[in-house]
Amino acid sequence: MPVIQAVRWAPAGDAVRILDQTCLPADYVERDLRSLDDVCEAIATLRVRGAPAIGIAGAMGLVASLARHSTLGAAELAALARASADRIAAVRPTAVNLPWAMRRMLRRLDEVRGADAAALLDALRAEATAILDEDRVMCRRIGELGAELLADGARVLTHCNAGALATGGIGTALAPVYVAAERGMAVEVFADETRPLLQGSRLTAWELQRAGIPVTVLTDGMAASLMAAGRVDVVLVGADRIAANGDVANKVGTSMLAIAARHHGVPFYVAAPSSTLDAATPTGATIRIEQRGADEVTALHGVRTAPDGVAVYNPAFDVTPAGLVTGIVTDRGVFRAPYDFSRDAVPRPDA
Amino acid sequence: MPVIQAVRWAPAGDAVRILDQTCLPADYVERDLRSLDDVCEAIATLRVRGAPAIGIAGAMGLVASLARHSTLGAAELAALARASADRIAAVRPTAVNLPWAMRRMLRRLDEVRGADAAALLDALRAEATAILDEDRVMCRRIGELGAELLADGARVLTHCNAGALATGGIGTALAPVYVAAERGMAVEVFADETRPLLQGSRLTAWELQRAGIPVTVLTDGMAASLMAAGRVDVVLVGADRIAANGDVANKVGTSMLAIAARHHGVPFYVAAPSSTLDAATPTGATIRIEQRGADEVTALHGVRTAPDGVAVYNPAFDVTPAGLVTGIVTDRGVFRAPYDFSRDAVPRPDA
Repeated sequence: MPVIQAVRWAPAGDAVRILDQTCLPADYVERDLRSLDDVCEAIATLRVRGAPAIGIAGAMGLVASLARHSTLGAAELAALARASADRIAAVRPTAVNLPWAMRRMLRRLDEVRGADAAALLDALRAEATAILDEDRVMCRRIGELGAELLADGARVLTHCNAGALATGGIGTALAPVYVAAERGMAVEVFADETRPLLQGSRLTAWELQRAGIPVTVLTDGMAASLMAAGRVDVVLVGADRIAANGDVANKVGTSMLAIAARHHGVPFYVAAPSSTLDAATPTGATIRIEQRGADEVTALHGVRTAPDGVAVYNPAFDVTPAGLVTGIVTDRGVFRAPYDFSRDAVPRPDA
Repeated sequence: MPVIQAVRWAPAGDAVRILDQTCLPADYVERDLRSLDDVCEAIATLRVRGAPAIGIAGAMGLVASLARHSTLGAAELAALARASADRIAAVRPTAVNLPWAMRRMLRRLDEVRGADAAALLDALRAEATAILDEDRVMCRRIGELGAELLADGARVLTHCNAGALATGGIGTALAPVYVAAERGMAVEVFADETRPLLQGSRLTAWELQRAGIPVTVLTDGMAASLMAAGRVDVVLVGADRIAANGDVANKVGTSMLAIAARHHGVPFYVAAPSSTLDAATPTGATIRIEQRGADEVTALHGVRTAPDGVAVYNPAFDVTPAGLVTGIVTDRGVFRAPYDFSRDAVPRPDA
């Protein structure tokens, strides 16, 4: 199966190389992010997107942007790192992974306090690489645990893109699908197109088709119709932030899908790395939801799809109450209600 | 309030003049349909759309297409009328109004059997005009009955377009909104954009904005988020066919909206002329759902939004079970579960 690498180091190590997701499915364009502006712009405009991927790109981008300032002393470099990390963390407010990755980078910076500038930079580079590598391992683990939930011939409905394009590895919601396919199981995916930015039809359909996995696109409003026709065995989605009680913030439309799945008796699973679990957020009610611009809804490729000046409601995410979530598949095991993330759900393989 | 006339006679009476809805909101284009091919093409491509409007356009189009053949004798004209009506009725299978209008036209033809060709044509023209005029009256009546369900300040969520553009009058689902506004009540509308063809953002938003009624567009997947935020007082949608048990076929996405409304405790009303009630269809299970082409989902204005060759699920309609419908507002009164359409729900004003 061809593995897409959505985020990686450029060969010279001086930039984060991303696959520009705003160009898919028409064009395959890679971009090298070097400056802080590059990194923030790419995250803000969703050239790189998906909660795990933006955490990785933010960490690696922080390193690339600092590496350009070779004349700085250790104190200046550390100060710049802190300011830059704050700026990156603020680009998108909902996903927990971005501030999580920045906190982790700054903690590493603290640990090597007193070293010279070159050593500080080396430590940060190693930390960013570790975040990328660990994400790959987490995706694989999620895939293995999640594949156990799928029967041979499973028909999986997903929303947005929580695949390889959203992570450093084989994805979160799509990881069980990839692992099931590797194991020789029949598996097919129904991909909600996911308005307004069409991550499902543009990205999920593209990466699954490329991997040779049968995929069918539908509009978001068709999911209940598909369930009513008995054509969905399980819903699998990703998450941008999971509150301590199990409430899940994910791409807008997810909560509607969860309600429909409950109505039609279809299991609804969330798959996410444990970095998405946010112990500091007790419930979904306090998760800040990013509101995005009207143009995403009123125009597509420059063609207006709504009258000029019309008001628009455009939250990027919604919150699915824990009560509608059958289970949460993480690298630390499959959690089920009542959710308690303070301990691992199942023994880790190395435990 | 400016009244849009989606379907009417061209001034010379030799054509059906429609507002071409495929050009909205960018361009206001009227087209005159004269031939049978014109009429079928306009209905098939949704230049004219909405269950009541296609019934009206079909009936008037039948007359216009027959009027071009002034050399035909009465028997030939009647035979052509039957063949043409069969073809028009088959253009779109789900809405009951189209075959209903055609049956009504042929019944009229039977009633004037023996008359000469000119008299047959006059009778058909009068019948088509009656269908148009009665629809206007039905819309008004639906608006008056439905407005009673709205509180001052009501925030109405709707799906697709069941407004003036979908009927000969002030619409079905939007009729209560127009009447409430006429009565000086504050009322605002949230319009699902309604993928794939965007009837909500292109048409509903356009006609409400033109009428001076506050309207906000959202994508279909955002409706549950809006309800969760407590910003929807009532859902009002139209219908393409209503089975004898109250199951409602309407634009795909409607059943998902009904499920979300039930989950969030929001009343869910359907508004439709009594011609939409189909006593011959016992339940929604036997309603034939039109499947439309993949291109509607995978491309917009010629720009691909999904990879080449991807499979697509694209039913034009879905069925909302009667159990999720709070009430059905018709010109014969507001029906409530358990649904029984064999008698009027409330005395008619002339009863």
